[in-house]
Amino acid sequence: MSARLDAQMAFLMEADKLKAVTRATRNHDQRFENSAEHSWHLALFALVLAEHADETVDVARVIKMLLIHDIVEIDAGDAPIFGNVDETATKAAEAAAAERLFGLLPAEQADALLTLWNEFEANQTADAKFAKSLDRFQPPNLNLASGGGSWTDYNVDYATFETRLSPKISRGAPKLWTWLQPKVLAFFATR
Amino acid sequence: MSARLDAQMAFLMEADKLKAVTRATRNHDQRFENSAEHSWHLALFALVLAEHADETVDVARVIKMLLIHDIVEIDAGDAPIFGNVDETATKAAEAAAAERLFGLLPAEQADALLTLWNEFEANQTADAKFAKSLDRFQPPNLNLASGGGSWTDYNVDYATFETRLSPKISRGAPKLWTWLQPKVLAFFATR
Repeated sequence: MSARLDAQMAFLMEADKLKAVTRATRNHDQRFENSAEHSWHLALFALVLAEHADETVDVARVIKMLLIHDIVEIDAGDAPIFGNVDETATKAAEAAAAERLFGLLPAEQADALLTLWNEFEANQTADAKFAKSLDRFQPPNLNLASGGGSWTDYNVDYATFETRLSPKISRGAPKLWTWLQPKVLAFFATR
Repeated sequence: MSARLDAQMAFLMEADKLKAVTRATRNHDQRFENSAEHSWHLALFALVLAEHADETVDVARVIKMLLIHDIVEIDAGDAPIFGNVDETATKAAEAAAAERLFGLLPAEQADALLTLWNEFEANQTADAKFAKSLDRFQPPNLNLASGGGSWTDYNVDYATFETRLSPKISRGAPKLWTWLQPKVLAFFATR
Protein backbone atom coordinates (compact mmCIF):
# COMPACT_ATOMS: atom_id res chain seq x y z
CA MET A 1 0.00 0.00 0.00
CA SER A 2 2.71 2.45 0.93
CA ALA A 3 4.74 1.69 -2.22
CA ARG A 4 1.61 2.29 -4.26
CA LEU A 5 0.94 5.64 -2.57
CA ASP A 6 4.64 6.52 -2.90
CA ALA A 7 4.33 6.05 -6.67
CA GLN A 8 1.12 8.08 -6.88
CA MET A 9 2.71 10.92 -4.90
CA ALA A 10 5.86 10.83 -7.04
CA PHE A 11 3.63 11.46 -10.07
CA LEU A 12 1.60 14.20 -8.37
CA MET A 13 4.68 16.06 -7.16
CA GLU A 14 6.35 15.75 -10.57
CA ALA A 15 3.15 17.20 -12.05
CA ASP A 16 3.77 20.33 -9.94
CA LYS A 17 6.36 21.28 -12.58
CA LEU A 18 3.56 22.01 -15.07
CA LYS A 19 3.02 25.25 -13.13
CA ALA A 20 6.41 26.39 -14.45
CA VAL A 21 5.66 25.71 -18.16
CA THR A 22 4.85 29.02 -19.83
CA ARG A 23 2.42 29.32 -22.74
CA ALA A 24 2.18 31.92 -25.52
CA THR A 25 -1.20 33.19 -24.30
CA ARG A 26 -1.58 36.00 -21.75
CA ASN A 27 -4.08 36.21 -18.89
CA HIS A 28 -6.20 39.33 -18.21
CA ASP A 29 -3.27 40.88 -16.33
CA GLN A 30 -0.83 40.33 -19.27
CA ARG A 31 1.16 37.65 -17.43
CA PHE A 32 1.87 34.66 -19.67
CA GLU A 33 -0.43 31.79 -18.77
CA ASN A 34 1.15 28.62 -17.44
CA SER A 35 0.01 25.17 -18.52
CA ALA A 36 -1.32 24.16 -15.08
CA GLU A 37 -3.67 27.11 -14.69
CA HIS A 38 -4.59 26.70 -18.38
CA SER A 39 -5.59 23.08 -17.67
CA TRP A 40 -7.77 24.24 -14.77
CA HIS A 41 -9.40 26.90 -16.92
CA LEU A 42 -10.18 24.38 -19.68
CA ALA A 43 -11.66 21.90 -17.21
CA LEU A 44 -13.96 24.70 -16.03
CA PHE A 45 -14.85 25.47 -19.67
CA ALA A 46 -15.84 21.81 -20.11
CA LEU A 47 -17.94 21.85 -16.93
CA VAL A 48 -19.89 24.93 -18.05
CA LEU A 49 -20.02 24.53 -21.85
CA ALA A 50 -20.63 20.79 -22.34
CA GLU A 51 -24.10 21.43 -23.80
CA HIS A 52 -22.46 23.16 -26.79
CA ALA A 53 -20.47 20.09 -27.86
CA ASP A 54 -21.23 18.95 -31.40
CA GLU A 55 -21.97 15.40 -30.21
CA THR A 56 -23.10 14.30 -26.76
CA VAL A 57 -20.09 14.04 -24.46
CA ASP A 58 -19.31 12.51 -21.08
CA VAL A 59 -18.40 15.70 -19.20
CA ALA A 60 -16.48 13.87 -16.46
CA ARG A 61 -14.27 12.14 -19.06
CA VAL A 62 -13.68 15.42 -20.92
CA ILE A 63 -12.62 17.06 -17.67
CA LYS A 64 -10.22 14.22 -16.81
CA MET A 65 -8.75 14.44 -20.32
CA LEU A 66 -8.21 18.18 -19.97
CA LEU A 67 -6.63 17.83 -16.52
CA ILE A 68 -3.88 15.63 -18.01
CA HIS A 69 -3.71 16.85 -21.62
CA ASP A 70 -0.68 19.13 -21.15
CA ILE A 71 1.31 17.16 -18.57
CA VAL A 72 3.70 16.02 -21.31
CA GLU A 73 4.87 19.63 -21.59
CA ILE A 74 6.87 19.13 -18.37
CA ASP A 75 9.39 17.32 -20.59
CA ALA A 76 8.44 18.51 -24.08
CA GLY A 77 7.54 22.19 -23.51
CA ASP A 78 4.63 24.08 -25.03
CA ALA A 79 4.30 24.31 -28.83
CA PRO A 80 2.54 27.63 -29.66
CA ILE A 81 -0.07 27.40 -32.44
CA PHE A 82 1.34 30.52 -34.16
CA GLY A 83 4.96 29.41 -33.70
CA ASN A 84 6.91 27.48 -36.33
CA VAL A 85 6.99 24.10 -34.70
CA ASP A 86 8.41 20.82 -36.06
CA GLU A 87 5.25 18.74 -35.58
CA THR A 88 6.91 15.36 -36.01
CA ALA A 89 9.60 16.14 -33.44
CA THR A 90 7.00 17.56 -31.05
CA LYS A 91 4.80 14.45 -31.33
CA ALA A 92 7.78 12.18 -30.63
CA ALA A 93 8.91 14.24 -27.63
CA GLU A 94 5.38 14.28 -26.23
CA ALA A 95 4.93 10.54 -26.64
CA ALA A 96 8.19 9.89 -24.77
CA ALA A 97 7.12 12.37 -22.08
CA ALA A 98 3.78 10.60 -21.66
CA GLU A 99 5.54 7.25 -21.18
CA ARG A 100 7.91 8.69 -18.56
CA LEU A 101 5.41 10.83 -16.63
CA PHE A 102 2.37 8.54 -16.52
CA GLY A 103 4.87 5.70 -15.99
CA LEU A 104 5.58 7.08 -12.52
CA LEU A 105 2.13 5.81 -11.47
CA PRO A 106 1.13 2.26 -10.49
CA ALA A 107 0.82 0.23 -13.71
CA GLU A 108 -2.96 0.17 -14.11
CA GLN A 109 -3.27 3.91 -13.42
CA ALA A 110 -0.42 4.62 -15.82
CA ASP A 111 -2.18 2.58 -18.52
CA ALA A 112 -5.52 4.30 -17.93
CA LEU A 113 -4.10 7.84 -18.13
CA LEU A 114 -1.86 7.03 -21.08
CA THR A 115 -4.88 5.61 -22.91
CA LEU A 116 -6.91 8.72 -22.09
CA TRP A 117 -4.09 11.00 -23.25
CA ASN A 118 -3.72 9.02 -26.49
CA GLU A 119 -7.47 9.33 -27.07
CA PHE A 120 -7.18 13.11 -26.66
CA GLU A 121 -4.25 13.30 -29.07
CA ALA A 122 -5.98 11.10 -31.69
CA ASN A 123 -8.91 13.56 -31.74
CA GLN A 124 -11.46 11.01 -33.01
CA THR A 125 -13.98 10.33 -30.22
CA ALA A 126 -16.72 12.81 -29.27
CA ASP A 127 -15.03 13.48 -25.91
CA ALA A 128 -11.61 14.09 -27.47
CA LYS A 129 -12.96 16.31 -30.25
CA PHE A 130 -14.79 18.52 -27.74
CA ALA A 131 -11.76 18.65 -25.42
CA LYS A 132 -9.45 19.60 -28.32
CA SER A 133 -11.91 22.27 -29.48
CA LEU A 134 -11.99 23.83 -26.01
CA ASP A 135 -8.19 23.83 -25.99
CA ARG A 136 -8.34 26.00 -29.15
CA PHE A 137 -11.36 28.08 -28.11
CA GLN A 138 -10.01 29.40 -24.80
CA PRO A 139 -6.85 31.23 -26.05
CA PRO A 140 -8.64 33.59 -28.50
CA ASN A 141 -10.97 34.55 -25.66
CA LEU A 142 -7.94 35.38 -23.51
CA ASN A 143 -6.46 37.35 -26.43
CA LEU A 144 -9.67 39.38 -26.67
CA ALA A 145 -9.59 39.99 -22.91
CA SER A 146 -5.91 40.99 -22.86
CA GLY A 147 -6.13 43.30 -25.88
CA GLY A 148 -4.37 41.09 -28.43
CA GLY A 149 -2.09 38.74 -26.51
CA SER A 150 -0.45 36.11 -28.72
CA TRP A 151 -1.96 37.68 -31.87
CA THR A 152 0.09 40.80 -31.20
CA ASP A 153 3.18 38.92 -30.01
CA TYR A 154 3.21 36.69 -33.11
CA ASN A 155 2.00 39.39 -35.52
CA VAL A 156 -1.07 37.36 -36.55
CA ASP A 157 -3.73 38.76 -38.92
CA TYR A 158 -7.39 37.73 -39.09
CA ALA A 159 -6.94 35.46 -42.12
CA THR A 160 -4.17 33.50 -40.40
CA PHE A 161 -6.28 33.23 -37.25
CA GLU A 162 -9.27 31.89 -39.18
CA THR A 163 -7.22 29.43 -41.24
CA ARG A 164 -5.52 27.95 -38.18
CA LEU A 165 -8.35 28.07 -35.65
CA SER A 166 -11.67 27.72 -37.44
CA PRO A 167 -11.28 24.02 -38.38
CA LYS A 168 -9.90 23.12 -34.96
CA ILE A 169 -12.66 24.81 -32.95
CA SER A 170 -15.43 23.82 -35.36
CA ARG A 171 -14.48 20.15 -35.28
CA GLY A 172 -15.89 19.53 -31.81
CA ALA A 173 -17.79 22.73 -31.07
CA PRO A 174 -19.11 24.55 -34.17
CA LYS A 175 -21.49 26.63 -32.02
CA LEU A 176 -18.54 28.03 -30.08
CA TRP A 177 -16.83 29.01 -33.34
CA THR A 178 -20.02 30.75 -34.53
CA TRP A 179 -20.15 32.68 -31.25
CA LEU A 180 -16.47 33.61 -31.33
CA GLN A 181 -15.92 34.57 -34.97
CA PRO A 182 -17.74 37.96 -35.05
CA LYS A 183 -15.97 39.00 -31.84
CA VAL A 184 -12.56 38.29 -33.32
CA LEU A 185 -13.52 39.97 -36.61
CA ALA A 186 -14.60 43.08 -34.70
CA PHE A 187 -11.32 43.08 -32.78
CA PHE A 188 -9.18 42.92 -35.93
CA ALA A 189 -11.36 45.56 -37.63
CA THR A 190 -10.25 48.13 -35.04
CA ARG A 191 -6.54 47.52 -35.50
CA MET B 1 -28.98 30.68 -27.08
CA SER B 2 -26.50 33.48 -27.58
CA ALA B 3 -27.56 35.22 -24.33
CA ARG B 4 -27.05 31.93 -22.51
CA LEU B 5 -23.58 31.44 -23.97
CA ASP B 6 -22.79 35.13 -23.27
CA ALA B 7 -23.56 34.52 -19.59
CA GLN B 8 -21.48 31.32 -19.48
CA MET B 9 -18.53 33.10 -21.09
CA ALA B 10 -18.86 36.06 -18.72
CA PHE B 11 -18.42 33.61 -15.84
CA LEU B 12 -15.52 31.75 -17.48
CA MET B 13 -13.62 34.94 -18.28
CA GLU B 14 -14.23 36.35 -14.79
CA ALA B 15 -12.84 33.05 -13.47
CA ASP B 16 -9.57 33.88 -15.25
CA LYS B 17 -8.87 36.25 -12.35
CA LEU B 18 -8.30 33.28 -10.04
CA LYS B 19 -4.91 32.93 -11.76
CA ALA B 20 -3.93 36.22 -10.08
CA VAL B 21 -4.89 35.17 -6.51
CA THR B 22 -1.71 34.28 -4.66
CA ARG B 23 -1.58 31.63 -1.93
CA ALA B 24 0.79 31.20 1.01
CA THR B 25 2.22 27.95 -0.38
CA ARG B 26 5.23 27.80 -2.70
CA ASN B 27 5.71 25.54 -5.71
CA HIS B 28 8.91 23.53 -6.33
CA ASP B 29 10.53 26.63 -7.84
CA GLN B 30 9.71 28.80 -4.77
CA ARG B 31 7.16 30.92 -6.65
CA PHE B 32 3.98 31.39 -4.60
CA GLU B 33 1.25 29.13 -5.91
CA ASN B 34 -1.85 30.79 -7.35
CA SER B 35 -5.35 29.50 -6.64
CA ALA B 36 -6.06 28.45 -10.24
CA GLU B 37 -3.04 26.16 -10.59
CA HIS B 38 -3.72 24.96 -7.01
CA SER B 39 -7.25 23.96 -8.09
CA TRP B 40 -5.82 22.04 -11.04
CA HIS B 41 -3.31 20.27 -8.82
CA LEU B 42 -6.03 19.25 -6.35
CA ALA B 43 -8.28 17.92 -9.12
CA LEU B 44 -5.35 15.77 -10.23
CA PHE B 45 -4.85 14.61 -6.62
CA ALA B 46 -8.51 13.54 -6.57
CA LEU B 47 -8.17 11.70 -9.88
CA VAL B 48 -5.15 9.71 -8.67
CA LEU B 49 -5.86 9.26 -4.95
CA ALA B 50 -9.61 8.57 -4.80
CA GLU B 51 -9.03 5.00 -3.57
CA HIS B 52 -7.58 6.43 -0.34
CA ALA B 53 -10.74 8.28 0.64
CA ASP B 54 -12.14 7.21 4.01
CA GLU B 55 -15.57 6.53 2.49
CA THR B 56 -16.38 5.67 -1.12
CA VAL B 57 -16.51 8.86 -3.19
CA ASP B 58 -17.79 9.87 -6.61
CA VAL B 59 -14.48 10.99 -8.16
CA ALA B 60 -16.12 13.09 -10.87
CA ARG B 61 -18.09 15.06 -8.26
CA VAL B 62 -14.99 15.54 -6.09
CA ILE B 63 -13.11 16.88 -9.12
CA LYS B 64 -15.91 19.30 -10.01
CA MET B 65 -16.00 20.49 -6.40
CA LEU B 66 -12.26 21.11 -6.39
CA LEU B 67 -12.37 22.95 -9.73
CA ILE B 68 -14.74 25.54 -8.21
CA HIS B 69 -13.81 25.44 -4.51
CA ASP B 70 -11.56 28.52 -4.55
CA ILE B 71 -13.36 30.70 -7.13
CA VAL B 72 -14.76 32.84 -4.30
CA GLU B 73 -11.19 34.03 -3.65
CA ILE B 74 -11.49 36.28 -6.73
CA ASP B 75 -13.50 38.59 -4.48
CA ALA B 76 -12.58 37.38 -0.98
CA GLY B 77 -8.86 36.59 -1.33
CA ASP B 78 -7.02 33.58 0.10
CA ALA B 79 -7.10 32.94 3.87
CA PRO B 80 -3.82 31.17 4.82
CA ILE B 81 -4.20 28.35 7.35
CA PHE B 82 -1.25 29.66 9.41
CA GLY B 83 -2.39 33.29 9.15
CA ASN B 84 -4.55 35.01 11.77
CA VAL B 85 -7.81 35.16 9.88
CA ASP B 86 -11.20 36.41 11.12
CA GLU B 87 -13.18 33.29 10.23
CA THR B 88 -16.63 34.87 10.52
CA ALA B 89 -15.70 37.76 8.23
CA THR B 90 -14.04 35.38 5.76
CA LYS B 91 -17.13 33.13 5.62
CA ALA B 92 -19.40 36.13 4.98
CA ALA B 93 -17.13 37.52 2.26
CA GLU B 94 -16.91 34.11 0.58
CA ALA B 95 -20.67 33.57 0.66
CA ALA B 96 -21.22 36.97 -1.00
CA ALA B 97 -18.53 36.15 -3.57
CA ALA B 98 -20.19 32.82 -4.37
CA GLU B 99 -23.53 34.60 -4.99
CA ARG B 100 -21.92 37.15 -7.29
CA LEU B 101 -19.59 34.86 -9.22
CA PHE B 102 -21.82 31.80 -9.75
CA GLY B 103 -24.64 34.30 -10.32
CA LEU B 104 -23.01 35.31 -13.61
CA LEU B 105 -24.13 31.93 -15.01
CA PRO B 106 -27.57 30.97 -16.34
CA ALA B 107 -29.85 30.38 -13.33
CA GLU B 108 -29.86 26.57 -13.23
CA GLN B 109 -26.07 26.37 -13.65
CA ALA B 110 -25.61 29.02 -10.99
CA ASP B 111 -27.81 27.04 -8.60
CA ALA B 112 -26.00 23.78 -9.32
CA LEU B 113 -22.52 25.22 -8.73
CA LEU B 114 -23.59 27.21 -5.68
CA THR B 115 -25.10 24.03 -4.22
CA LEU B 116 -21.89 22.11 -4.95
CA TRP B 117 -19.76 24.86 -3.38
CA ASN B 118 -21.99 24.94 -0.28
CA GLU B 119 -21.65 21.15 0.02
CA PHE B 120 -17.86 21.53 -0.07
CA GLU B 121 -17.93 24.26 2.57
CA ALA B 122 -20.28 22.31 4.85
CA ASN B 123 -17.78 19.41 4.88
CA GLN B 124 -20.36 16.74 5.74
CA THR B 125 -20.78 14.44 2.71
CA ALA B 126 -18.19 11.81 1.76
CA ASP B 127 -17.28 13.77 -1.40
CA ALA B 128 -16.86 17.06 0.46
CA LYS B 129 -14.86 15.52 3.29
CA PHE B 130 -12.41 13.95 0.84
CA ALA B 131 -12.15 17.14 -1.22
CA LYS B 132 -11.47 19.21 1.92
CA SER B 133 -8.87 16.72 3.09
CA LEU B 134 -7.04 16.92 -0.24
CA ASP B 135 -7.10 20.73 0.04
CA ARG B 136 -5.19 20.36 3.33
CA PHE B 137 -2.98 17.45 2.23
CA GLN B 138 -1.43 19.08 -0.86
CA PRO B 139 0.22 22.14 0.78
CA PRO B 140 2.43 20.21 3.26
CA ASN B 141 3.65 18.12 0.34
CA LEU B 142 4.59 21.33 -1.50
CA ASN B 143 6.29 22.58 1.68
CA LEU B 144 8.36 19.40 1.82
CA ALA B 145 9.27 19.79 -1.87
CA SER B 146 10.18 23.47 -1.54
CA GLY B 147 12.27 23.05 1.63
CA GLY B 148 9.83 24.56 4.12
CA GLY B 149 7.59 26.97 2.20
CA SER B 150 4.77 28.39 4.32
CA TRP B 151 6.11 26.64 7.46
CA THR B 152 9.24 28.78 7.19
CA ASP B 153 7.39 31.93 6.09
CA TYR B 154 4.93 31.68 9.01
CA ASN B 155 7.46 30.32 11.53
CA VAL B 156 5.41 27.16 12.14
CA ASP B 157 6.68 24.34 14.39
CA TYR B 158 5.71 20.67 14.20
CA ALA B 159 3.20 20.84 17.07
CA THR B 160 1.31 23.71 15.42
CA PHE B 161 1.34 21.87 12.11
CA GLU B 162 -0.08 18.70 13.69
CA THR B 163 -2.74 20.56 15.70
CA ARG B 164 -4.00 22.47 12.69
CA LEU B 165 -3.64 19.85 9.94
CA SER B 166 -4.06 16.40 11.45
CA PRO B 167 -7.84 16.68 12.12
CA LYS B 168 -8.48 18.31 8.74
CA ILE B 169 -6.59 15.74 6.68
CA SER B 170 -7.72 12.77 8.78
CA ARG B 171 -11.39 13.66 8.49
CA GLY B 172 -11.70 12.54 4.87
CA ALA B 173 -8.42 10.74 4.24
CA PRO B 174 -6.82 9.22 7.35
CA LYS B 175 -4.55 7.02 5.20
CA LEU B 176 -3.05 10.14 3.62
CA TRP B 177 -2.36 11.59 7.06
CA THR B 178 -0.67 8.34 8.12
CA TRP B 179 1.53 8.49 5.03
CA LEU B 180 2.38 12.18 5.46
CA GLN B 181 3.04 12.46 9.19
CA PRO B 182 6.43 10.67 9.40
CA LYS B 183 7.70 12.71 6.42
CA VAL B 184 6.82 15.98 8.12
CA LEU B 185 8.25 14.79 11.45
CA ALA B 186 11.51 13.90 9.70
CA PHE B 187 11.61 17.32 8.06
CA PHE B 188 11.16 19.21 11.32
CA ALA B 189 13.71 16.94 13.06
CA THR B 190 16.44 18.29 10.75
CA ARG B 191 15.72 21.95 11.47
